[in-house]
Amino acid sequence: MEEAKGLVKHIFLAKFKEGIPSDQIEKLIKGYANLVNLIEPMKAFQWGTNVSIENLHQGFTHVFESTFESTEGVAEYVSHPAHVEFANLFLAAVEKVIVIDYKPTAVRL
Amino acid sequence: MEEAKGLVKHIFLAKFKEGIPSDQIEKLIKGYANLVNLIEPMKAFQWGTNVSIENLHQGFTHVFESTFESTEGVAEYVSHPAHVEFANLFLAAVEKVIVIDYKPTAVRL
Repeated sequence: MEEAKGLVKHIFLAKFKEGIPSDQIEKLIKGYANLVNLIEPMKAFQWGTNVSIENLHQGFTHVFESTFESTEGVAEYVSHPAHVEFANLFLAAVEKVIVIDYKPTAVRL
Repeated sequence: MEEAKGLVKHIFLAKFKEGIPSDQIEKLIKGYANLVNLIEPMKAFQWGTNVSIENLHQGFTHVFESTFESTEGVAEYVSHPAHVEFANLFLAAVEKVIVIDYKPTAVRL
């Protein structure tokens, strides 16, 4: 099994609280995306709502994936003032989250 | 916000049971990766272990990401005999899982 570069994927699952208006959710998503412009080690961002059919998603409604060049880059992101400010806003709107980072690795069969 | 093609990302978080030997885990990961060769709509596979620093990963140890061309492709995968057989083996080795699918979308700021 071989590791693809030093890339780190930062996976963020969220369940928004009931009653949060959709325009507020959209604003939060744009705020999340905008961190790419504010925090140098954050290289890419994509997101989507749950479309799974297996019912193993445990109520999570949204997936956010951001990409970093290294685990040091994630650490810089986590402590960056723009992230800290955004995270406070975002976490106030969600019922639960899971955040997990991994280095994407291919499998040589 | 615009949706990138019809691609679906299938995110699988797992926590392996305590005491599952690492060679058994490696074999299961290879078996997961090999589904790309057996199930036509499954287009790509990558994985990695948790390297997060925020302690919001709720004990999950592994992330698996596979890619499909459509939600119909995911449905075909879920019910495919090769997947069903593999899932039975895999699920016997894990303490908990979350599976969530999303269509990766970029944000136009």
